[in-house]
Amino acid sequence: MIVDPNASPTIIRVMGFCGSDFIEREVNDVAEILAIQVAYRSVWIDVIGLASEEKLKSLASLLQLHPLAMEDVVNVHQRAKVDEFGDHSFVVARMIDGEDATQTEQLTFFLTKQVLLSFQERPGDCWEPIRHRIRTRRGKICNSGVDHLLYALLDAVIDSYFPVMEKIAEQVDTIEADIIEGLDPSQMRKIHYLRGQLLSLRRSIRPHREMINELVRDSLPHISPETRIHLRDCYDHVVQVVDAVDTYRELTSDMRDFYLSSVSNSMNEVMKVLTFISTIFIPLSFIAGVYGMNFSDTSPWNMPELKWEFGYFFSLALMGLVAFGLLIYFRKRRWL
Amino acid sequence: MIVDPNASPTIIRVMGFCGSDFIEREVNDVAEILAIQVAYRSVWIDVIGLASEEKLKSLASLLQLHPLAMEDVVNVHQRAKVDEFGDHSFVVARMIDGEDATQTEQLTFFLTKQVLLSFQERPGDCWEPIRHRIRTRRGKICNSGVDHLLYALLDAVIDSYFPVMEKIAEQVDTIEADIIEGLDPSQMRKIHYLRGQLLSLRRSIRPHREMINELVRDSLPHISPETRIHLRDCYDHVVQVVDAVDTYRELTSDMRDFYLSSVSNSMNEVMKVLTFISTIFIPLSFIAGVYGMNFSDTSPWNMPELKWEFGYFFSLALMGLVAFGLLIYFRKRRWL
Amino acid sequence: MIVDPNASPTIIRVMGFCGSDFIEREVNDVAEILAIQVAYRSVWIDVIGLASEEKLKSLASLLQLHPLAMEDVVNVHQRAKVDEFGDHSFVVARMIDGEDATQTEQLTFFLTKQVLLSFQERPGDCWEPIRHRIRTRRGKICNSGVDHLLYALLDAVIDSYFPVMEKIAEQVDTIEADIIEGLDPSQMRKIHYLRGQLLSLRRSIRPHREMINELVRDSLPHISPETRIHLRDCYDHVVQVVDAVDTYRELTSDMRDFYLSSVSNSMNEVMKVLTFISTIFIPLSFIAGVYGMNFSDTSPWNMPELKWEFGYFFSLALMGLVAFGLLIYFRKRRWL
Amino acid sequence: MIVDPNASPTIIRVMGFCGSDFIEREVNDVAEILAIQVAYRSVWIDVIGLASEEKLKSLASLLQLHPLAMEDVVNVHQRAKVDEFGDHSFVVARMIDGEDATQTEQLTFFLTKQVLLSFQERPGDCWEPIRHRIRTRRGKICNSGVDHLLYALLDAVIDSYFPVMEKIAEQVDTIEADIIEGLDPSQMRKIHYLRGQLLSLRRSIRPHREMINELVRDSLPHISPETRIHLRDCYDHVVQVVDAVDTYRELTSDMRDFYLSSVSNSMNEVMKVLTFISTIFIPLSFIAGVYGMNFSDTSPWNMPELKWEFGYFFSLALMGLVAFGLLIYFRKRRWL
Amino acid sequence: MIVDPNASPTIIRVMGFCGSDFIEREVNDVAEILAIQVAYRSVWIDVIGLASEEKLKSLASLLQLHPLAMEDVVNVHQRAKVDEFGDHSFVVARMIDGEDATQTEQLTFFLTKQVLLSFQERPGDCWEPIRHRIRTRRGKICNSGVDHLLYALLDAVIDSYFPVMEKIAEQVDTIEADIIEGLDPSQMRKIHYLRGQLLSLRRSIRPHREMINELVRDSLPHISPETRIHLRDCYDHVVQVVDAVDTYRELTSDMRDFYLSSVSNSMNEVMKVLTFISTIFIPLSFIAGVYGMNFSDTSPWNMPELKWEFGYFFSLALMGLVAFGLLIYFRKRRWL
Repeated sequence: MIVDPNASPTIIRVMGFCGSDFIEREVNDVAEILAIQVAYRSVWIDVIGLASEEKLKSLASLLQLHPLAMEDVVNVHQRAKVDEFGDHSFVVARMIDGEDATQTEQLTFFLTKQVLLSFQERPGDCWEPIRHRIRTRRGKICNSGVDHLLYALLDAVIDSYFPVMEKIAEQVDTIEADIIEGLDPSQMRKIHYLRGQLLSLRRSIRPHREMINELVRDSLPHISPETRIHLRDCYDHVVQVVDAVDTYRELTSDMRDFYLSSVSNSMNEVMKVLTFISTIFIPLSFIAGVYGMNFSDTSPWNMPELKWEFGYFFSLALMGLVAFGLLIYFRKRRWL
Repeated sequence: MIVDPNASPTIIRVMGFCGSDFIEREVNDVAEILAIQVAYRSVWIDVIGLASEEKLKSLASLLQLHPLAMEDVVNVHQRAKVDEFGDHSFVVARMIDGEDATQTEQLTFFLTKQVLLSFQERPGDCWEPIRHRIRTRRGKICNSGVDHLLYALLDAVIDSYFPVMEKIAEQVDTIEADIIEGLDPSQMRKIHYLRGQLLSLRRSIRPHREMINELVRDSLPHISPETRIHLRDCYDHVVQVVDAVDTYRELTSDMRDFYLSSVSNSMNEVMKVLTFISTIFIPLSFIAGVYGMNFSDTSPWNMPELKWEFGYFFSLALMGLVAFGLLIYFRKRRWL
Repeated sequence: MIVDPNASPTIIRVMGFCGSDFIEREVNDVAEILAIQVAYRSVWIDVIGLASEEKLKSLASLLQLHPLAMEDVVNVHQRAKVDEFGDHSFVVARMIDGEDATQTEQLTFFLTKQVLLSFQERPGDCWEPIRHRIRTRRGKICNSGVDHLLYALLDAVIDSYFPVMEKIAEQVDTIEADIIEGLDPSQMRKIHYLRGQLLSLRRSIRPHREMINELVRDSLPHISPETRIHLRDCYDHVVQVVDAVDTYRELTSDMRDFYLSSVSNSMNEVMKVLTFISTIFIPLSFIAGVYGMNFSDTSPWNMPELKWEFGYFFSLALMGLVAFGLLIYFRKRRWL
Repeated sequence: MIVDPNASPTIIRVMGFCGSDFIEREVNDVAEILAIQVAYRSVWIDVIGLASEEKLKSLASLLQLHPLAMEDVVNVHQRAKVDEFGDHSFVVARMIDGEDATQTEQLTFFLTKQVLLSFQERPGDCWEPIRHRIRTRRGKICNSGVDHLLYALLDAVIDSYFPVMEKIAEQVDTIEADIIEGLDPSQMRKIHYLRGQLLSLRRSIRPHREMINELVRDSLPHISPETRIHLRDCYDHVVQVVDAVDTYRELTSDMRDFYLSSVSNSMNEVMKVLTFISTIFIPLSFIAGVYGMNFSDTSPWNMPELKWEFGYFFSLALMGLVAFGLLIYFRKRRWL
Repeated sequence: MIVDPNASPTIIRVMGFCGSDFIEREVNDVAEILAIQVAYRSVWIDVIGLASEEKLKSLASLLQLHPLAMEDVVNVHQRAKVDEFGDHSFVVARMIDGEDATQTEQLTFFLTKQVLLSFQERPGDCWEPIRHRIRTRRGKICNSGVDHLLYALLDAVIDSYFPVMEKIAEQVDTIEADIIEGLDPSQMRKIHYLRGQLLSLRRSIRPHREMINELVRDSLPHISPETRIHLRDCYDHVVQVVDAVDTYRELTSDMRDFYLSSVSNSMNEVMKVLTFISTIFIPLSFIAGVYGMNFSDTSPWNMPELKWEFGYFFSLALMGLVAFGLLIYFRKRRWL
């Protein structure tokens, strides 16, 4: 087990509860947990920060955790998964950390009959409402086992994806409306950014689907049938997020195609006007150029038009005729 | 259970029937339902609007509904699914609400042995013909259990997708014909709009496939084999819609590619004419420009052509030759 | 059961056979069938046209067909499928009707122990050779049960896809050769048309794969093991068509990309020549323009070149130099 | 069974072997085979050419082959598959015939306990080394049953795909290197050709995967466990080819995109130079044009610049200024 | 078994260990291994280089290896897989060899109860830390069987993919940042190169997923439940790599689209300026051309403007008006 030197310092918070009995304590010596384990039916050990190899090791030996699982705890690039190690189950999940979908925090859980041990990378999580419910002894958590607590924590983790998803949905709608109003190169950049966010999101959320499905279907120890019904609900939420991510990936793909085709259409319009103006004036300029030639009028065959009484009008009329002819031609071919 | 403050006010309509016996009543006090339950073999409780937390809760306690399911009832962004809660089954479906495929209404059902409880978000549904059949005691519904009623309601929900699908099919055909007749940037916008509609439609309808399949295959309680045969028919309809949506997604994708290639072809044509006219006249203008230079005729070496007797015709002939040469060249390269 | 008012009038043709015994009769009264049923081991009732609700209903009651299946018979937009209704199996298939892959005719079959009942939308089918074999008492059909007849009919239906498929394959090859010879906007239109045909074809043929697979694998009643071996052969044919359709979809997709890239390459060539001619002559025209300016020669500083003895040749040499320089530059950058 | 009139004439070669005993004979009368069957433990009947309906039929009746299988033998457009007909297994495979991936030859096999019957469309195959091994009584084949011979033949068929695959791989690498060195429209044509080859290859090879997998997994009669281990090796080879085909399809898709983007980039460069030269010279030509106007100098207000002492230099300076300004502007926008 | 003549010379290194007992020896005569097998519980025979057919054959006969497996050992283009041959399991894996993802080295393993036999193509591997652990008798390897050693070796092989993956991830991020800062044709080349690398990587790593999954799930002989738990961890690593490869394939696909659309946007900008400058000056040049015509002033109708007192200003005003009008028109259409 190699601890990351840049990890947050390790804090261990223990909550014990059993119906209306309740204790909350920050412990430094892992041995203190033993006493709580004796007194309370359910114990939640929440470890924040993974810097202290010593504390992590003493926790592992206290609860007889598998070394491979402990390695996954400190190696914070795991995908969501659930592993069974004889008497304890090991769960990895990833929580959205902040507003950016690319930044996630790894959360790991060990579930035994009596104890739920959770590890967080950093302080700051989405579990304060759950702690509040335990402290005020409200909700089902206090009267259920730690498996129900695991469900509650996982549910909060999954719910952390919804605001990010909604923000992306909002941005997608804004860009869509923007494109229809007028094209701007920044829109492509925004679509590209959103697609990157969605890709990150998908990479984080997708493994949760399989993970929670395993919790629901496989008969892992220490998870009661009642909790499984709740986890099924949690599974529905994951599927909803995955579904939304996939839909928005496709939607942004469609938007990108629409943007590009709109740009191409708009280019087309510009090109047409260029074609129009250029091809009208280039022949006219040529005629003007011809009558601007300096052939000597000593020869009667040299540019007799220049000496005609209405030569100027003749040339203007010729230009008008050419311009008119081109206009007719263009309109006939439906280019205007 | 957190009720949406903007939800429609809650109305509870109860229908009891048993062969030729029949009752229909709007109830305010949930307790009234008890009497109907005693008197009739089959009871349909239709709840329209989800604003009254009190009514919903009393219904839940009357029928002993699972709290997780009740949360899904008021949280109206669920995907279609079926869940089993011991003695009752819970079904979520989504009905197309109006003409726009992006707007759907969540419908939830609780099926017990005797009672079918349905929740709608808003007044207005596609079930009036079914109610009429119950009132006139026609059709199989009156003589079958509430499971058959559930089938009838789900079948009506699925059928609500067909008119939207047909409208889209019609629009797709219209655009296809339009594109072949002549290109217009609005066509791309329409294709994009239809693709968005189809994506929404797919997102709503797809989960129904799995949901109804579960109703058909899994041996959920309270669903008779006869009803399962009917649900199999309903399943075929869902598959038909899903199939159509997928086909039309691909068709619009093909149309978009066709549109873009047609635009590109048309651009090509325009560019060719531009190339033609420009490249013909630019060299001619150059020749005219040369003979428009003002070199002093004091030197016999300066522009002797200007003093030739047929200088003008010589220059015109030169221009004609150049133009003809370019024409030959272009035709040889098959650009014209 | 709601009959389409535009449906073809209903004709009922009954064939009874049993080894060398054989009868063929067009019946108006469904009751006549009873006598045939008594006399012959195998009876094929072929119903052409779905206009007569009365006849369809009497057939349904005679053979005790399930109402849901009968609804699928008259609603002619079903996908191919097989359903089991207790004592009879219900099969839906779609036959290619004519030369256009988008037009298919729904065929439905009811298979009981003794009777095969088939429904066609319109007169005209691909079964004449089978009828001939029965009439002449040749082939296995007469000595096998009606399940073998069902196989023979389905096999003929699947075989109806091959000519359409071959026609498409031929057209794809023609277009491919055409594109390599020279580009034409009509090619894109043809590719688009073929892709639409292939999409239609896939939509019709794909469900047959699953349908025939079910007939082969599931132990449906009245289908003998020997017939299943034959159906396995039929399944291979379906897979062959599906495979061909998918391959040709991909091939046309490749062709479209090739066409577009070829158009783009050809545009590139045209653009290069435009660039070449324009960028050579525009600077030359500028030089001619400069020496066409009318600055007064009263000042010795105004355009002294015009009075040089070899001013004209100087200007022409300057132009030649510029043109030559540009040519070298273009060649160096490999644009020519 | 309808024999193709253009099929190659039918030759029947029989090899009988049993340890060190060995016979090889070309037979005309199928009855001769009976004697060989009696004398040797393993008999390989190799039929080359499918023209003689008579010979094929007598073979079929000798070995009691299923008529459906015989139809597949003469109808040479089957996909690779394996079918079980009671006492004999029927295998279809496709061999690459020559250098072009689009041309394949259908090979069919009937495997009974003692006899392996193979059919080829044309003379010329990849089995000469196997025949040599039998003739020289080397290798495992002589001491194993005909199931091992079937494995050896199939393995040779699969191995016939490798050289074609390698040739394609080589060409892909050549084109890739070519594109990086310089663009040429012929590259697109080559990529398109290779993609077509890969599509054909995939269509031929893919069904083999399923076919050999069935031979490995399903307990078909007459295939010993030892042979199955060998077939598993053959399966690995098929998977390797399928994998390579899929990878090269994707690689050529990437190459096509790269080619197109490179063409677009190169176009971009050309366009930029065009823009540069044109937009520099067009305003300059305009200035020259203005001072080439012929306004009468009788009015002092008409073109006074023409009479300035340094008018010419003024005009040239003006042109230089405009050119310089545009250059600065273009550089500022990073277009140069 | 045909040995590649260019293969590295064969070196056989044997390590025997059993708790604290340990021996390491390079053997020339395969018979020496027998003595080690007797003395130590676990024996690792590591064969480096596949040139010596003699040594390979004697090893094969010593351990009674299957000939098909030995063929796979010397044919170094196998995909990762696991095969069971009665008493020994055969495993193929591919290690990244160097910095380029396209270059991999085939590693093959034979696992019997007591012996792990590994073959490498070339000297140089990622197993030095494992050898060190055995030599210093640290870690679990010495106290576990050879199955645990196999796990350790496979884990090291999988871990060899991580640095390559990270290097690619880094390059992807660099290119992404580069594109946003400014476009350059070399970016497309880099993306294309990375996509090729990812494709190679996927082709190598993907079969490992299935291979290790088989080791975890199927009850192969000689693999203990404890080792399976460790292999499950190894499986998670493979899935992580595969997942990353797929994500980066999609990311580079998005980047390519973004690059192309950015190039197209930038082209658009350039085209607009060209359009602007050209279409402004071409009509102006035409006006200047008209007043540069040389119509004789003997006729009063010929170009009277030239003799107006303010003719010059009139012409300049006319030009200004035209330029201003075009500017207004362009701005109105939002092209500027």
